[in-house]
Amino acid sequence: MSRAGTQTFIYDRPPVIAAHASIAGPKEGQGPLAEWFDAVLEDDLLGQKSWELAEMEMVRRCVQRALNDGHIEDSAVQAMLGGDLNNQIIASSFAARALGAPFIGLYGACSTFVQALVLGSALISGGFLDNAVCCASSHFCTAERQFRFPLELGTQRPPQASWTATACGAALLEARPGAAGLRVVSGTVGRVIDLNITDANHMGAAMAPAVFDCIAAHLSDTGRSARDYDLIATGDLGWIGRDLLLELFSAAEIDLPADRLVDCGASLFFREQDAHAGGSGCGCVASVSCGWLMKRMERGEFRRMLLAGSGAMLSPTSSQQGQSVPGIAYAVCIEGGE
Amino acid sequence: MSRAGTQTFIYDRPPVIAAHASIAGPKEGQGPLAEWFDAVLEDDLLGQKSWELAEMEMVRRCVQRALNDGHIEDSAVQAMLGGDLNNQIIASSFAARALGAPFIGLYGACSTFVQALVLGSALISGGFLDNAVCCASSHFCTAERQFRFPLELGTQRPPQASWTATACGAALLEARPGAAGLRVVSGTVGRVIDLNITDANHMGAAMAPAVFDCIAAHLSDTGRSARDYDLIATGDLGWIGRDLLLELFSAAEIDLPADRLVDCGASLFFREQDAHAGGSGCGCVASVSCGWLMKRMERGEFRRMLLAGSGAMLSPTSSQQGQSVPGIAYAVCIEGGE
Repeated sequence: MSRAGTQTFIYDRPPVIAAHASIAGPKEGQGPLAEWFDAVLEDDLLGQKSWELAEMEMVRRCVQRALNDGHIEDSAVQAMLGGDLNNQIIASSFAARALGAPFIGLYGACSTFVQALVLGSALISGGFLDNAVCCASSHFCTAERQFRFPLELGTQRPPQASWTATACGAALLEARPGAAGLRVVSGTVGRVIDLNITDANHMGAAMAPAVFDCIAAHLSDTGRSARDYDLIATGDLGWIGRDLLLELFSAAEIDLPADRLVDCGASLFFREQDAHAGGSGCGCVASVSCGWLMKRMERGEFRRMLLAGSGAMLSPTSSQQGQSVPGIAYAVCIEGGE
Repeated sequence: MSRAGTQTFIYDRPPVIAAHASIAGPKEGQGPLAEWFDAVLEDDLLGQKSWELAEMEMVRRCVQRALNDGHIEDSAVQAMLGGDLNNQIIASSFAARALGAPFIGLYGACSTFVQALVLGSALISGGFLDNAVCCASSHFCTAERQFRFPLELGTQRPPQASWTATACGAALLEARPGAAGLRVVSGTVGRVIDLNITDANHMGAAMAPAVFDCIAAHLSDTGRSARDYDLIATGDLGWIGRDLLLELFSAAEIDLPADRLVDCGASLFFREQDAHAGGSGCGCVASVSCGWLMKRMERGEFRRMLLAGSGAMLSPTSSQQGQSVPGIAYAVCIEGGE
């Protein structure tokens, strides 16, 4: 059996991350991780006529860069797995149209990139695919006008609000038994958890319980402790959500050393950049993990990482109808070279 | 290897469809398939305060019915795979919150149910899961106000428009080597195909090329002809799209016998029911396959079915920005009895 427990998949034939690419927007390119991205956009319109077209183009370029770095032709890609925050995931599906590969559209809100890694790795380990490109994107301007207010209104943002990153990440997974490189060795599928947060601006609070639930399940399923990981990286809880996560582990009396926990959203911007609670969006964990974290692993800075993406499963309609904000999380364990 | 070709997964350990459930709305319950649904709603609000809440409740009930019929406790469900047409797939994710099982959120537009069967079957055949419930839903009223116009406007619909079904289908897949019952033996992941249809009301035309591409890939990957299937059931091409599909096969000189081709959308309503081109929506192929088609297979009326779900990957934003309507399709081969 390839199952360790109820929620965790163990990949007996773990795929290698053959290549990874990251693109960040202008604001993200002025943050502390600027040097780690493969490309920083000067213009968040990418020469397109709309922000939605710009996001599609960003996904297309990012996937293409991963494929180029992995020395694989478009026509050899066996599946693209991905999604984004746009209604009906149009950024990803239109990029998939350009690529021409079989497409598996996903929606896990800001956790989508890690959800794609969980499923893509399972399909490769299970022998169904030889390769798959996993990707996710977000764009500040498409997200603001869809989820919140037109930018032109200049609406004030509350301090607990996060800043949707303009960013994309793409990772090419390949079946390469015995090869060196980063490998995805296990993946955990989270449950939808809702502690009745009704403030749709307070994503960190809405998602922290789901991240706690997912990481706790992963540790339980694999019989490990958090200290078995050199790094535990969460998606985009932000500064507030990261503190809440530490509180939840403390209350449950499960050891989670604060010095091994980094949050992608809390790492993307300097505090002075006015991003409030930190970065968010599908592109946040995607670009930060494909840019900063995987590159550091390849340099040998740490050997085993648990990457947990988190998502808030709300829509403007659900919020307007007074519904609370359910959260979800997915996690993958990535191990470094031989 | 478990791969037959580039796009098709062969399930070496094919999951059994241990149970399936279907719920249809009042209009659908007056159509030709009325007697085949497990439940027909008298009130499409299901006693809720909004149509969105009604759709969530419909999904919850339908999944619960499949689990009850399959004699499995909620807590034993290892994964729920599904999606819907609502922005951010809130109907499915809120139903997953109620169920409490690990959740894999998907978006393949109206093809989502078959997409879920493809992935759920792979996860079971690959040994990652012992069971999974696959589901998809749509609701005429949530879809109209989100994609088109508020119902209160009474906007006239063009004749090529399809009617989004108020319906849900759920199938419980289980790893049961050697057991009797319907089995999912292979699945094909489609590509995003776009023949530049810009009429967002003309879904049949937008999706037919993707269905052609997916079925042709399935036949090529498996080395079969359409006559190897007792029935080829498409999702919701409708009456117009079904004719277009036959034309595409004819033009490509690939044999597709018209008398073995049924379309769920073209079967859901009587012509007199004013559904124009036929039924559509994620719930269409889900409810018609879980209700009508699987029950007929269990009665022994046919033994091998290719079920191809189709989706149009548009959003109101992409249409308003003048983009064409890309289509996608997924297919599964289901075999009956021993």
